[in-house]
Amino acid sequence: MTARETLIQIKRNAAWHRGGVEMGATNWTIPARKGLAVRFGRGQSFSVVNTHGTQVVDTWAFNAGDVGEFMSMEHSRAGFRRLVSRVNDAYLTNKRRPIMTVTDDTSPGRHDTLIAACDIYRYQGLGHHGHHDNCTENLHHALAALGLKPSETPAPLNLFMNIPWEPNGDLLWNEPMSRPGDAITFRAEMDLVAVFSACPMDLLPINGKDGIIRDAQVVLA
Amino acid sequence: MTARETLIQIKRNAAWHRGGVEMGATNWTIPARKGLAVRFGRGQSFSVVNTHGTQVVDTWAFNAGDVGEFMSMEHSRAGFRRLVSRVNDAYLTNKRRPIMTVTDDTSPGRHDTLIAACDIYRYQGLGHHGHHDNCTENLHHALAALGLKPSETPAPLNLFMNIPWEPNGDLLWNEPMSRPGDAITFRAEMDLVAVFSACPMDLLPINGKDGIIRDAQVVLA
Repeated sequence: MTARETLIQIKRNAAWHRGGVEMGATNWTIPARKGLAVRFGRGQSFSVVNTHGTQVVDTWAFNAGDVGEFMSMEHSRAGFRRLVSRVNDAYLTNKRRPIMTVTDDTSPGRHDTLIAACDIYRYQGLGHHGHHDNCTENLHHALAALGLKPSETPAPLNLFMNIPWEPNGDLLWNEPMSRPGDAITFRAEMDLVAVFSACPMDLLPINGKDGIIRDAQVVLA
Repeated sequence: MTARETLIQIKRNAAWHRGGVEMGATNWTIPARKGLAVRFGRGQSFSVVNTHGTQVVDTWAFNAGDVGEFMSMEHSRAGFRRLVSRVNDAYLTNKRRPIMTVTDDTSPGRHDTLIAACDIYRYQGLGHHGHHDNCTENLHHALAALGLKPSETPAPLNLFMNIPWEPNGDLLWNEPMSRPGDAITFRAEMDLVAVFSACPMDLLPINGKDGIIRDAQVVLA
């Protein structure tokens, strides 16, 4: 995607968000390698669909009235007392308030709360030269399109990302266990802005062996 | 400690830090329930000593020239590919640069990278009324004493905190496995400001069964 195409995509997404739920939209595409921000009202539910089965979706959520309050993996793990949430577990903000609760999951339940969003430094460290799409920039671009600028880059909830842990604490970077159409559903516990990034990591097998980055969907549930 | 005593302690600590290594100081006390910030130069080594054996020490590190760059648990886990570091593992910043490396550890090696620093919301959630000392405030007070104000509250490295994981990902909050005098030693990989907090959690057994919060030491190694 050229810079101009990216800008058009961002603006188009921004129009969706602003209209978003209010305009009656009920589904959104997370473009391959790019980000998407969507507003949800308290009590609304949404599903993130792994359309092609192999795509990791980095996910964030911010209090719609205060981007300084956001879903925090380190606070959430202390809340549900697990490395990875299960159905009925609530993710907490950095003020330890529930922001979204897992209400359904048709995937094998393997998601990740441990690993930072990819960023330009990650791709440089893996030997990539020049710019590379990355989830950290996708987060900030998607929020900027809504006029929002968070003071922090929170650790993401990496949906469908398969990072198993060994008994000794070693971590592995494996392919997703999800299948095409698998979906995880959340209920918004406050008015929130959710951000999704179809992770562009193509130098490790986390998005499938073929390294092809694909789109995913968000659906009002 | 009264507010005035706290202020005196903070100012005294600030004097130590400003003088700190330059003035020839080689050891510092992390007061029970409170925080301490110390500057270390690149290549210097320091040990965090669990003087009484049962005290959790929340630890942060910031690039001395840019508090926007700091030790990040989610980036570090991706670097050393484990839930908890071992000797020779380097902690990384949010720019994926090594900031400090574990060079020695006389404790059983059980530390925590998963759990947020305690904060006032945590104590409220556990049923405490009114103010309670907490590691998040200790971090910001210790940095403020040096005239520093970070834009983020990074997830801490919780030294000596014993949060074992089960094969299914469940987490437990256990007493420290460390013994009096156990120490972990780090080499600074850049000029940095380290912040230590003798965690005041007395409503869970993470600081030992008796719930007594104790001081700890930092020693130039």
